[in-house]
Amino acid sequence: MRIAIAQLNYKIGDFSGNYAKIETVVKENAKNADLIIFSELSLSGYYPKDLIESKGFIESQNQFLTKIQQLTAQFNTSLVVGFIDKNKGKGKPFHNSLCLISKGLLSYTYHKRLLPVYNIFDEARHFAPGNTPGIYEFEGVNIGFLICEDGWAGLDNYLYECDPVNDFANKNIDLIVCINGSPSNIGKQAERIEHFCAIAKKCHSPLVFTNQVGGNDDIVFDGSSFLVDQNGLLVGCAKSFEEDISIFSLENSTVISTLFPYQQMSNAELFYYQTILGLKDYIQKCGFKKVVIGVSGGIDSALTLALAVLAIGSENVVALAMPSRYSSSGSINDAKALCDNLSVKMIIVSIEEEFSLAIEQFKQSFGETPSNLTEQNIQARLRGRILMEYSNQTGALVLSTGNKSELSVGYTTLYGDMTGGFNVIGDLYKTEVYELALYFNQKHPDKSIPKAIITKAPSAELAPNQKDSDSLPEYEVLDPILKLYIEGDLLPFDELEKYQRQVLSLPADLIAQVHRLVDAAEFKRRQGAPIVRVQRRAFGHGRQLPIAAVYPKVPPLT
Amino acid sequence: MRIAIAQLNYKIGDFSGNYAKIETVVKENAKNADLIIFSELSLSGYYPKDLIESKGFIESQNQFLTKIQQLTAQFNTSLVVGFIDKNKGKGKPFHNSLCLISKGLLSYTYHKRLLPVYNIFDEARHFAPGNTPGIYEFEGVNIGFLICEDGWAGLDNYLYECDPVNDFANKNIDLIVCINGSPSNIGKQAERIEHFCAIAKKCHSPLVFTNQVGGNDDIVFDGSSFLVDQNGLLVGCAKSFEEDISIFSLENSTVISTLFPYQQMSNAELFYYQTILGLKDYIQKCGFKKVVIGVSGGIDSALTLALAVLAIGSENVVALAMPSRYSSSGSINDAKALCDNLSVKMIIVSIEEEFSLAIEQFKQSFGETPSNLTEQNIQARLRGRILMEYSNQTGALVLSTGNKSELSVGYTTLYGDMTGGFNVIGDLYKTEVYELALYFNQKHPDKSIPKAIITKAPSAELAPNQKDSDSLPEYEVLDPILKLYIEGDLLPFDELEKYQRQVLSLPADLIAQVHRLVDAAEFKRRQGAPIVRVQRRAFGHGRQLPIAAVYPKVPPLT
Repeated sequence: MRIAIAQLNYKIGDFSGNYAKIETVVKENAKNADLIIFSELSLSGYYPKDLIESKGFIESQNQFLTKIQQLTAQFNTSLVVGFIDKNKGKGKPFHNSLCLISKGLLSYTYHKRLLPVYNIFDEARHFAPGNTPGIYEFEGVNIGFLICEDGWAGLDNYLYECDPVNDFANKNIDLIVCINGSPSNIGKQAERIEHFCAIAKKCHSPLVFTNQVGGNDDIVFDGSSFLVDQNGLLVGCAKSFEEDISIFSLENSTVISTLFPYQQMSNAELFYYQTILGLKDYIQKCGFKKVVIGVSGGIDSALTLALAVLAIGSENVVALAMPSRYSSSGSINDAKALCDNLSVKMIIVSIEEEFSLAIEQFKQSFGETPSNLTEQNIQARLRGRILMEYSNQTGALVLSTGNKSELSVGYTTLYGDMTGGFNVIGDLYKTEVYELALYFNQKHPDKSIPKAIITKAPSAELAPNQKDSDSLPEYEVLDPILKLYIEGDLLPFDELEKYQRQVLSLPADLIAQVHRLVDAAEFKRRQGAPIVRVQRRAFGHGRQLPIAAVYPKVPPLT
Repeated sequence: MRIAIAQLNYKIGDFSGNYAKIETVVKENAKNADLIIFSELSLSGYYPKDLIESKGFIESQNQFLTKIQQLTAQFNTSLVVGFIDKNKGKGKPFHNSLCLISKGLLSYTYHKRLLPVYNIFDEARHFAPGNTPGIYEFEGVNIGFLICEDGWAGLDNYLYECDPVNDFANKNIDLIVCINGSPSNIGKQAERIEHFCAIAKKCHSPLVFTNQVGGNDDIVFDGSSFLVDQNGLLVGCAKSFEEDISIFSLENSTVISTLFPYQQMSNAELFYYQTILGLKDYIQKCGFKKVVIGVSGGIDSALTLALAVLAIGSENVVALAMPSRYSSSGSINDAKALCDNLSVKMIIVSIEEEFSLAIEQFKQSFGETPSNLTEQNIQARLRGRILMEYSNQTGALVLSTGNKSELSVGYTTLYGDMTGGFNVIGDLYKTEVYELALYFNQKHPDKSIPKAIITKAPSAELAPNQKDSDSLPEYEVLDPILKLYIEGDLLPFDELEKYQRQVLSLPADLIAQVHRLVDAAEFKRRQGAPIVRVQRRAFGHGRQLPIAAVYPKVPPLT
């Protein structure tokens, strides 16, 4: 049996667009594949959130599900499609489901049994779990079906009462088909492969893992679909961060087409592909054409600009440099050199006159001199407003440029540098921003971020000779504290140990102070733009905290 | 048996503060009550979200649980306390639990069996459901325990596989004790009473419903605890929107203390108490002392100012009037009259000079004249920045003043009038803003919102002679469309019918256009301040939607 893994980039709720992609794949591969496997919720895209419950959503989906059925009537190819089925029993009104469609008929339906409700996942909000093992004989092949989380009950995970994989034992499964909406983050690809190789080995069955690809708001799917043989050995992978159709034959579990050997990405490489795809898809799926970015001469805005150029081309990116009295001449020169290297149009809008007037107005209105903090925020907010002026005038999307270190400790101005509809690097700690910048330069020597931007000491340039290190520990010190505090419970043992070693010798009160800063900045993050998620735990839906609350004191090393 | 309902206002995670409240109640009522019933998660406050999983949280809670045990050793009073118990089995690591504490000992523990995962609720994220009916004999009284959602499986709700209330059948239950963290919204109090009276009747048992009170971020708990007799008749209610201790005796189910007859609140009355308490608690629990509000002479800012004065006193409220060339003189006079009536200090900060400079700068920088939209947003953002200047300088919390109609259709400026840490009236449709303003004036003739503010045509005053109705349907037309679209599925039949009647005669394309505006403004709301929730479905956690998505077309009447 010839099987195709269809790894596509879906838009949420865009049934006609998603159907068109599926149709194209079917038409182009019908001769080469007996079975084409699409990913979890392929018709709607993963994850539609409360759209699932909105009037007309399921009805629209079902119209296109019918169209898929009709499509298959013309071919000898069967399809596995992820869709939302109505729940006819008690519980939530829908099932996260897959169906097997052959010759115009929906011959088998399976309902996902394990519904993730943690981190960014909230499937129990919309779905009832299925309660029947997913075993179905298709053209003499006994297939065991899993949908994403269904595969994750085993090993050291005690979240679930049942393990759908165990139901495959002694059932002579010839092939395990796992369809997924599995988001990408650091370490995820290796974890998946290791985990599903173990399942294939345990079940003595080849296993095919199909994932979607593309960015949906803050979440990016890497694709990276793969095939494992019955001995639990990885046969090969589909492409990462792009659409891909991979065909293999089941008889001997050997690849006859486009699968690649697994190559582990470095973190910088992952950041690179993930942020670019996340940005590109947000822009495209929201219908924007252009972006505008405030460039300070610092590394965060430089990297954001560079990534935007790769995502949508330099002709669609505009840089605004908005110097004040505190901007060094180096900064403007560096920003200019950056824009030259990237072939980006840079517009200089001095905020000096407006800043002076704002301070004058402040004194007149409130009868006192603005504090340092007030002064600094005025500058940031003038810049935010000018970016939005450009956006309002031209329709360009403003990208905010805060990194995860800043956003963690609140070293950022609401309605100032936090201004923007989307943030590409907001899940990268500052030290990782440098990592990615260096990787970018290595990969694109013709577009390089100027060395001066990478080597200068980080500064917000909102006060005379200001350095980030005036208010914060050096980022090499800060970042491990943050990493442990924000996602320590999710780190694999070796990483956990590494960060703990780095933090071990630091004063306990410094660590506690950083924790307090993170806690106190929750109200700012609540109003921040969506951030491309790359870490195991990102700000946003994956970390839900109250504002008006007392946060527990946490031991330094956890 | 004498039983006290302890309806307290907890702060999330403030174990020492919450313990102190519990201790005071125990000491003051030990002589009058054999049993004191606190509410759901009383030690931690409801709902701590991911704090539950943060290191040190449960350990801190357990220290204070031990202190409660020690406290009871001194008295003849037993306590029912809501707390988080560790789950020793499979599944999520914790249980949402209650315990009975007597004479220094924890004699009984019950784990909540139905975990709500819809609207603002997400309990399956943190808790494993219990699987044992909550029946325990205490001093000769056979008590059936429920925790909040446990009581809601029956009637027309098919969400759950089991119904804990059914487990009380034929068990000779003498008293049903239901502890709750039940948020308030329109219609909720009546729904609760009706629902739990039916349970008491079905079980032939008196029932006591204990709720917490107070605002936690966007959610407000009204208290409104109540007692039902074994015939399913309401005996009486505790106070709404304030702490209250009510004592009754079980022998005859008659009230011997502070319970009140149920009086249904009008919507305006509910809005009044709920928004004031929500604001007051957010301010207090976040540690603010003062608020600052931009006053335009319009109804939204006027009402926000009036509510803030009631929440924290006029001496802690500052109004900034920030006129531009488009502000009518009437507007400033109205704002002044408002501030005089409310004894609020008003500072006038003209934005005219800054606005002129901004436009000049825009032309110079970008070589064109700002569009109308750009111009309007510049004004709103100048005002937002000035409010934040005042906030940065003084520590006052900025309240944003957008109503639900505006926020729904995106008739609001990000980083402009959306500026603020908290929004008191953002879940009130514009027509309800008027309702509440009229109610306020009726209740506080000495502080009244000037008639001119209530009668003038709504205007953003960002362009010459601008009226809201230039861009939007009249609010009497708009609001029913919005109400149906945003929360139609949650409305009781009579309300649904009412709004459908109002929308019935409207052109389908007008309705579709409004729906599209709502969909398109999702990115703005994502960056908005927390809003005091009063409706069945509020923006925020209760309505989770993707941004980069295609929304289904919805029939006009749904």
